[in-house]
Amino acid sequence: MVPVLWAGFSLYNGGGMNGTSQMMDFLEEPLPGVGTYEDFNTIDWVREKSRDRDRHREIASKSKESTWALIQSVSDAFSGWLLMLLIGLLAGSLAGLIDISAHWMTDLKEGLCLSGFWFNHEHCCWNSNETTFEDRDKCPEWESWSQLIIGHGEGAFAYILNYFMYVLWALVFSLLAVLLVRGFAPYACGSGIPEIKTILSGFIIRGYLGKWTLIIKTVTLVLAVSSGLSLGKEGPLVHVACCCGNILCHLFTKYRKNEAKRREVLSAAAAAGVSVAFGAPIGGVLFSLEEVSYYFPLKTLWRSFFAALVAAFTLRSINPFGNSRLVLFYVEFHTPWHLLELVPFILLGIFGGLWGSFFIRSNIAWCRRRKTTKLGKYPVLEVLVVTAVTAVLAFPNEYTRMSTSELISELFNDCGLLDFSKLCEYVNDFNSTTGDVLPDRAAGPGVYTAMWQLALALILKVFITIFTFGMKVPSGLFIPSMAVGAIVGRLLGVGMEQLAYYHHDWTIFSGWCSQGADCITPGLYAMVGAAACLGGVTRMTVSLVVIMFELTGGLEYIVPLMAAAMTSKWVADAIGREGIYDAHIRLNGYPFLEAKEEFSHKTLAMDVMRPRRNDPVLTVITQDSMTVEDVEAIINETTYSGYPVVVSRESQRLVGFVLRRDLIISIENARKKQDGIVSTSIIYFTDHSPPLPPTSPSMLKLRSILDLSPFTVTDQTPMEIVVDIFRKLGLRQCLVTHNG
Amino acid sequence: MVPVLWAGFSLYNGGGMNGTSQMMDFLEEPLPGVGTYEDFNTIDWVREKSRDRDRHREIASKSKESTWALIQSVSDAFSGWLLMLLIGLLAGSLAGLIDISAHWMTDLKEGLCLSGFWFNHEHCCWNSNETTFEDRDKCPEWESWSQLIIGHGEGAFAYILNYFMYVLWALVFSLLAVLLVRGFAPYACGSGIPEIKTILSGFIIRGYLGKWTLIIKTVTLVLAVSSGLSLGKEGPLVHVACCCGNILCHLFTKYRKNEAKRREVLSAAAAAGVSVAFGAPIGGVLFSLEEVSYYFPLKTLWRSFFAALVAAFTLRSINPFGNSRLVLFYVEFHTPWHLLELVPFILLGIFGGLWGSFFIRSNIAWCRRRKTTKLGKYPVLEVLVVTAVTAVLAFPNEYTRMSTSELISELFNDCGLLDFSKLCEYVNDFNSTTGDVLPDRAAGPGVYTAMWQLALALILKVFITIFTFGMKVPSGLFIPSMAVGAIVGRLLGVGMEQLAYYHHDWTIFSGWCSQGADCITPGLYAMVGAAACLGGVTRMTVSLVVIMFELTGGLEYIVPLMAAAMTSKWVADAIGREGIYDAHIRLNGYPFLEAKEEFSHKTLAMDVMRPRRNDPVLTVITQDSMTVEDVEAIINETTYSGYPVVVSRESQRLVGFVLRRDLIISIENARKKQDGIVSTSIIYFTDHSPPLPPTSPSMLKLRSILDLSPFTVTDQTPMEIVVDIFRKLGLRQCLVTHNG
Repeated sequence: MVPVLWAGFSLYNGGGMNGTSQMMDFLEEPLPGVGTYEDFNTIDWVREKSRDRDRHREIASKSKESTWALIQSVSDAFSGWLLMLLIGLLAGSLAGLIDISAHWMTDLKEGLCLSGFWFNHEHCCWNSNETTFEDRDKCPEWESWSQLIIGHGEGAFAYILNYFMYVLWALVFSLLAVLLVRGFAPYACGSGIPEIKTILSGFIIRGYLGKWTLIIKTVTLVLAVSSGLSLGKEGPLVHVACCCGNILCHLFTKYRKNEAKRREVLSAAAAAGVSVAFGAPIGGVLFSLEEVSYYFPLKTLWRSFFAALVAAFTLRSINPFGNSRLVLFYVEFHTPWHLLELVPFILLGIFGGLWGSFFIRSNIAWCRRRKTTKLGKYPVLEVLVVTAVTAVLAFPNEYTRMSTSELISELFNDCGLLDFSKLCEYVNDFNSTTGDVLPDRAAGPGVYTAMWQLALALILKVFITIFTFGMKVPSGLFIPSMAVGAIVGRLLGVGMEQLAYYHHDWTIFSGWCSQGADCITPGLYAMVGAAACLGGVTRMTVSLVVIMFELTGGLEYIVPLMAAAMTSKWVADAIGREGIYDAHIRLNGYPFLEAKEEFSHKTLAMDVMRPRRNDPVLTVITQDSMTVEDVEAIINETTYSGYPVVVSRESQRLVGFVLRRDLIISIENARKKQDGIVSTSIIYFTDHSPPLPPTSPSMLKLRSILDLSPFTVTDQTPMEIVVDIFRKLGLRQCLVTHNG
Repeated sequence: MVPVLWAGFSLYNGGGMNGTSQMMDFLEEPLPGVGTYEDFNTIDWVREKSRDRDRHREIASKSKESTWALIQSVSDAFSGWLLMLLIGLLAGSLAGLIDISAHWMTDLKEGLCLSGFWFNHEHCCWNSNETTFEDRDKCPEWESWSQLIIGHGEGAFAYILNYFMYVLWALVFSLLAVLLVRGFAPYACGSGIPEIKTILSGFIIRGYLGKWTLIIKTVTLVLAVSSGLSLGKEGPLVHVACCCGNILCHLFTKYRKNEAKRREVLSAAAAAGVSVAFGAPIGGVLFSLEEVSYYFPLKTLWRSFFAALVAAFTLRSINPFGNSRLVLFYVEFHTPWHLLELVPFILLGIFGGLWGSFFIRSNIAWCRRRKTTKLGKYPVLEVLVVTAVTAVLAFPNEYTRMSTSELISELFNDCGLLDFSKLCEYVNDFNSTTGDVLPDRAAGPGVYTAMWQLALALILKVFITIFTFGMKVPSGLFIPSMAVGAIVGRLLGVGMEQLAYYHHDWTIFSGWCSQGADCITPGLYAMVGAAACLGGVTRMTVSLVVIMFELTGGLEYIVPLMAAAMTSKWVADAIGREGIYDAHIRLNGYPFLEAKEEFSHKTLAMDVMRPRRNDPVLTVITQDSMTVEDVEAIINETTYSGYPVVVSRESQRLVGFVLRRDLIISIENARKKQDGIVSTSIIYFTDHSPPLPPTSPSMLKLRSILDLSPFTVTDQTPMEIVVDIFRKLGLRQCLVTHNG
């Protein structure tokens, strides 16, 4: 008779992952409470879901009895929606707060508003009467540091003073940020998306979504963004929104007590986070679906959508950009694109893919070096050095001095007649202007200068971002990636435009790009480039295109975006399969079962289970013959997280499965509270215990903690089916049987 | 020793469904080919998926050997994308063809173009020189039937003649449609969405997505729409797109041979269908995800999106509406909405929910009557009667005479200064006009007439749609539902507008609706009403809102739409849980396991399995002692679709599971081809067969058809977990074990 074999592999820990063993050791420490989880442990989705169903059924059956119970049942049903509303409101408000503060503090590096120090540069000059339309940025109320300190803003000394103040403020902000993170909430660093993915897949990291993390992350995010480091606030905003979701869960018993339900809320909160980050509610929901979530039922889809909408509208009511626009980068293009332009768009896609995988490789290599060498011991110094380098190199170049989101806005912009930025300094020929449509024009000197500056900015951004992402400050990756892509796109776009202007008689241009026609929009190229680079780094496709679509609001431009995002994903996937978040998950050794990755080994369950064929026989507990002492010995000798219960040592027929943690707690409890439980008491897992001889010690019945329906597969099951079961049902363990 | 019990319930057939028994009888007829499926049977997702993985692995391992194999491997990887491209192109072209033909034939009911009979009314007058801007619809080239026949279009006789021709054409079109459907492709009737949902959940209906269905459905759809019946082309377009997908699958071995992979393609095709129906690619993908699909991996999401985009752009290139617009109803509103307007929007949502459940109930009752009484025997007569009634009642009223999509367009329209339709006949006060913004104005006589006509149209649409949906012609439900909602919405909108105009001093209006302000947009009300009614009938939420959002292209109006769609869903769900498609699935007795419905009974697997505790013991096959005769006896005596294989009759330990179909085919095959197989041959399912005494007949080894990894659950497993497993893994059967 072949024994029941047990596959003691928690698959979260098994399927090709490594580096998690030290975390799984936390399992040993017992904590009170049967059916709860320990830190750094995975939850049992099946148990959580069936617990929720039990709860739901109980409420439903009670609701027929009295009116009060009926009201409770209705309020229970609507508590999910209420929770979404609260999350949306809170996430939207926090995002507004972060936007406003970061804007103000970014400008603080350059100067101060005399009419009220709480105004940022733009606001300050809006309120001024002396602002002309052309020089919206200049007004007497706004004084640069040199004006404030030495009284004038001209000359080399003033420039150096401004330079010095800029670097100083950057250092102060980043120092504050890193000290706050280290001192109060170590989890507040980074983008948070890798960890949220892991948590949503069922892992527990206590405190990662707690109130301290929320407060510190909000504050330090503002500081980090204002310090001018090459990072964005979009990823961390997802973390902030998830913290809101987790904290608000405590208001409702339904969500506080059930880890699976809480993860549904967190998925929705992630959607709200992206929604406020870009002003793209639909894109946010798809981002949560495509990139972050693990378990995403349809109900969650609706709720995510609701939360994302509420958050977006809260943000719009706060109106942090002062333009009543929901979206971060509002663009309006006037010219349709031509089919031939797909060639440069696909080139941008290839660039995005190449840059994406280059970035991932270098960043992971650098982070690994930080983990393994002495570098990791001086996080504060590291942040200060990177900030100093960034600030020193950024100040002289106009395009790196401005905040990265402003830069992207400017790159996306379609030059109109009323634009006076350097990028729009074309040689104007007012005679040929008809209405709103501007023909392609020759580039003026401003455009050429801008091109050089942008090229320099590109080099800076490409390299500094590698060192920035992963430091001990909150840092998002969306904005720097988009900036890199937008710069390349704009450069290519302007190049194409000039090519078409000077060579409109070439065959490829004739027909659609005749002289005086407005045929190429460099802003669109910037946008496509941004999408390509973001796609290369994160490997998003649909959600990315939808986010970009929500920025422009025109279906017209979906095809270029789609082409670039797809090419970028294909190119990047050909070089390395992992996106940046998955790479960081693996780097940090979180247990995460990648749902997208195909399990390609042709193995059977038999081959991966433990103990192997030649190992000592499996530790099992019999249902009616072992004493407390025996069981305790097994618990002490082994480290498995649970034991199969069998009919008897000889027949080895499987009855059920008992968790180590539950067993320890129950025995301890019984010893304390139940009379007559001694080491020789026999533990019964059966329904009916046999009559005992009066001399023997009283028995311990533990049927209640026995899982009577453990998941079993036969030893001949292909491993990929086992992995599929683990993924889809969210199991913690699975027993392997042979001939029953 | 308790026997192994076997739960012979195919859960697709079990979970609260009934009426499927006569379909499952097809199981009896054996067909050649182990591992294929019969008609009206469900597929085994797990087996299909693992087959695809095996194939994929084989190609991947081969690709390392030679360049040719590498090319094959790459072409295999890209065949999915190529297939999507083809589906998009074909679906887009067909949609364009249907649009153009339906438009022309609808106008044919009223008259003919003299400058070319192939022009429709709009085109005919576009080409004319004598068209004035105000009377775009009138030109000498377009002659009504009375003008063609009796030479003039005035007077009672001409009116009656036109009336007669209108009814006549409608009857001719609908007669043709119903005859074609009955004669060539009975599956071409209805909307097709319930059946596609069922097919995507794993059911097989041969010919439902075949080429005859495609051709006949395309032709009859045009006829049915042109006949003026109260039906839409949107649902059938999804069916047409799925037919395209299914047919194109035959080009690629990968998809031809694997039922699970083919279902992924069909999900994407459904998205393409909605995409061309409304010009809403994102909405299409979400529709496929929310409403239609059963198994929707992320890869399918990307591919669906791609197919939807290609289809939308193909349609736009064909340009059937002649306005370069992608969307069916393009709307642009100029005025933002006010928070107080949420009250009427929620009222519209309540109406939508009420109407939705009223419609579902009446339609299902009528369809049931059709099935059970003599009515069902005269489908042609039924179609003719309904067409006649519709045409006779529709002609006198301008708003029912025009096609339903035109009606919806007109109702959505925001009245500008240059609109000359009756709905926009306001009392103009040109002095107060500032730029593009028109203030609220008093309604003129035209508006009042329009109101009355719309009210009558509403009554007609509400009742006639109940009888139309479910007849033996292709019929979609989207457009009629939207029409009902749009009419109610417009009525309410105009009412609100006039209230605000005459009572702008009321407290609720003061502040946002002062005199001369443009504060209420009746078109927006129509749109919200349409969303509410569509939501009430189909119970879509997110995809509906996204489709509507893609029509307007403004994030502004998401909140009203969301509020209405949500309210509508809640109200309708409170009255009856099922959407129209689920109700029709149940009515037709298709086996479909509703993924959204919660399984609320507290039962254990023990309680639902067959045989029950008191029934005769389970039929099992032993692994090494039964003869061919014994097995054949079992096959003949029972009707189960498979049998568990156990170690021996005494120990009853489960070894594996063998499918009835495979068993029959193998035995037949062996008898024909293998020497020495007689009725007393012993069938071995073991790996190594014992040496046989030389006198005995040779044995039959059938280990190859034995499924060594059947899914097993213990008899104590809660039923909801079993259902969950069935749903998520797409099982066909599951064995219940007790103590192994």
